[in-house]
Amino acid sequence: MKSIEGYQDVINQAIEERINRRDFQEPTGLYDPCKYILQNGGKRVRASLVLMASKMFSNSYMQAIPVAIAFETFHNFTLIHDDIMDKASIRRGKPTVHVKWNENTAILSGDAVMIMAYRFFEESGEYMPKLFNLLNTTALEVCEGQQYDIDLELTHVQSPEVTMPAYIKMIELKTSVLLAACLKAGAIVGGASAADADKLYEVGRNIGIAFQLQDDVLDSYGNEATFGKRIGGDISENKKTCLLISALNTLQGADRNALVQLVSDTTISEKDKLEQVRALYNKAQVKETTLEQIKDYFSKASTIVDAISIPDSQKTELRLFMNELINRIY
Amino acid sequence: MKSIEGYQDVINQAIEERINRRDFQEPTGLYDPCKYILQNGGKRVRASLVLMASKMFSNSYMQAIPVAIAFETFHNFTLIHDDIMDKASIRRGKPTVHVKWNENTAILSGDAVMIMAYRFFEESGEYMPKLFNLLNTTALEVCEGQQYDIDLELTHVQSPEVTMPAYIKMIELKTSVLLAACLKAGAIVGGASAADADKLYEVGRNIGIAFQLQDDVLDSYGNEATFGKRIGGDISENKKTCLLISALNTLQGADRNALVQLVSDTTISEKDKLEQVRALYNKAQVKETTLEQIKDYFSKASTIVDAISIPDSQKTELRLFMNELINRIY
Repeated sequence: MKSIEGYQDVINQAIEERINRRDFQEPTGLYDPCKYILQNGGKRVRASLVLMASKMFSNSYMQAIPVAIAFETFHNFTLIHDDIMDKASIRRGKPTVHVKWNENTAILSGDAVMIMAYRFFEESGEYMPKLFNLLNTTALEVCEGQQYDIDLELTHVQSPEVTMPAYIKMIELKTSVLLAACLKAGAIVGGASAADADKLYEVGRNIGIAFQLQDDVLDSYGNEATFGKRIGGDISENKKTCLLISALNTLQGADRNALVQLVSDTTISEKDKLEQVRALYNKAQVKETTLEQIKDYFSKASTIVDAISIPDSQKTELRLFMNELINRIY
Repeated sequence: MKSIEGYQDVINQAIEERINRRDFQEPTGLYDPCKYILQNGGKRVRASLVLMASKMFSNSYMQAIPVAIAFETFHNFTLIHDDIMDKASIRRGKPTVHVKWNENTAILSGDAVMIMAYRFFEESGEYMPKLFNLLNTTALEVCEGQQYDIDLELTHVQSPEVTMPAYIKMIELKTSVLLAACLKAGAIVGGASAADADKLYEVGRNIGIAFQLQDDVLDSYGNEATFGKRIGGDISENKKTCLLISALNTLQGADRNALVQLVSDTTISEKDKLEQVRALYNKAQVKETTLEQIKDYFSKASTIVDAISIPDSQKTELRLFMNELINRIY
């Protein structure tokens, strides 16, 4: 994404400087996996959002670097532990920590990465108490989101607890509060008013949900080359995505029964399952419904951006970022 | 221990108040295991040390309660994850979290307990930056100690890396820096000078090492009823304790070979192994040597207590605590 490209080098360099410090060298059995995840890049979206928000209000992002690194490091900790829980073997094209080393190493190094996030946070400056509260609140919410995700996956597909609001709450906690907190944290460091900082939080929360809903659509309807993941993974793993929930809400009678049947069918071939589920999705028009939902979240975010009390010229970068997100789906 | 009994109710009540807050209720799949470990007591040694040290310098421990709770909560997080790594099934007489629930729950709830420690730490007051640095440094050291422990257990018993200094370094990081940090943190909150706070750290470091060495002696030579654990566990599990390392340092020729043999013997009965290893330990006088080591650490700690620049009457409680520790071995 062009809007955040400019930040990536700054962030990578800031991380590199920190992990090369003497305190993160020994024992290598602990710190090598920490460096492995922190150096294995990704787009650095979270840190970029901190820097971008800081620059919106102060015309500089330098003072926000420690906070950006702290949030990015926290995110990387969640990846190590989530990958253990999800038994994921590949992350950003490389073996996950628990596969490259082992599970105990992944548990312990994940813990160390989380503490490193707090260590980097020590440099956060004058707004520390407010930012510390935000980081802790968000960190607990991300754990809650992960638990709601586990709970949802273990709930029977026909249970009354499998609802769109429950799904939205889960992705909000698991994904979007961290993006929201990054924007808010950057705003705070940049000297934004409390009202504007809260507005940026709401922007992040809405685009975070929209982003996750997009992911669901792309997983079933995307282009393998641009999406970067195998298409149809969610369907073949019977994941309770917004598409599935939307289809269950819309379909009735034999169609609904057929879908419920397909979700628990372990004998059907992957190809047949994809085809048949997608046919029912099309009948229920779940793609269209979800694209509407996504549009609503982006539109809410956009209205909030309008209301932030700074000159329009300072909102350009954020608007560009949002447009890039909107466009990833078409 | 009488010296810290008075603090336990205060600590338990402070923990209870905090975990009953509205923010730690849902999802129960996440927070029930957190409460389970935090309510399953233990002696609250770490929190007591924070309060005791604060009282030494300020005649009050009230202001140190949040910091005490934060350190105690951090300790409980390490227990959850260590128990997964060690495949331990019982902790304080009850099933461990990963046994009562499952491993994923133990990973995620452990993470949440660590974040809760930082959340409680938000109330730590005016000395926050100094205390935050101490907490983070210590937290990373505890992870390093756990890794050194794993490394040591995987190292062949005859490797030149299995040395007494390596062992002491491991227990120092794994156990004693946290006790040291608790005393120092309490001193800081109590308004101690930097020099006195550093002295209390050294007191904690020395008694922490002595305490762990005592544990090694008690595991092989203790009284099952008072020690509370099965005697001989370390020997039958071939743990690289200070006793084993001391014996390897002392014995020569056939005796040393016999000990090396016994440590890797998987066919011998537990009873025979205990008897034969203990006979070699006795020949090498490892109990006497270790008791001397322990005495030295306590004596160092005691000399440092003498040098703390407050009236002797304010050191009574700490001295009582140290005497109780010394006496647990006889």
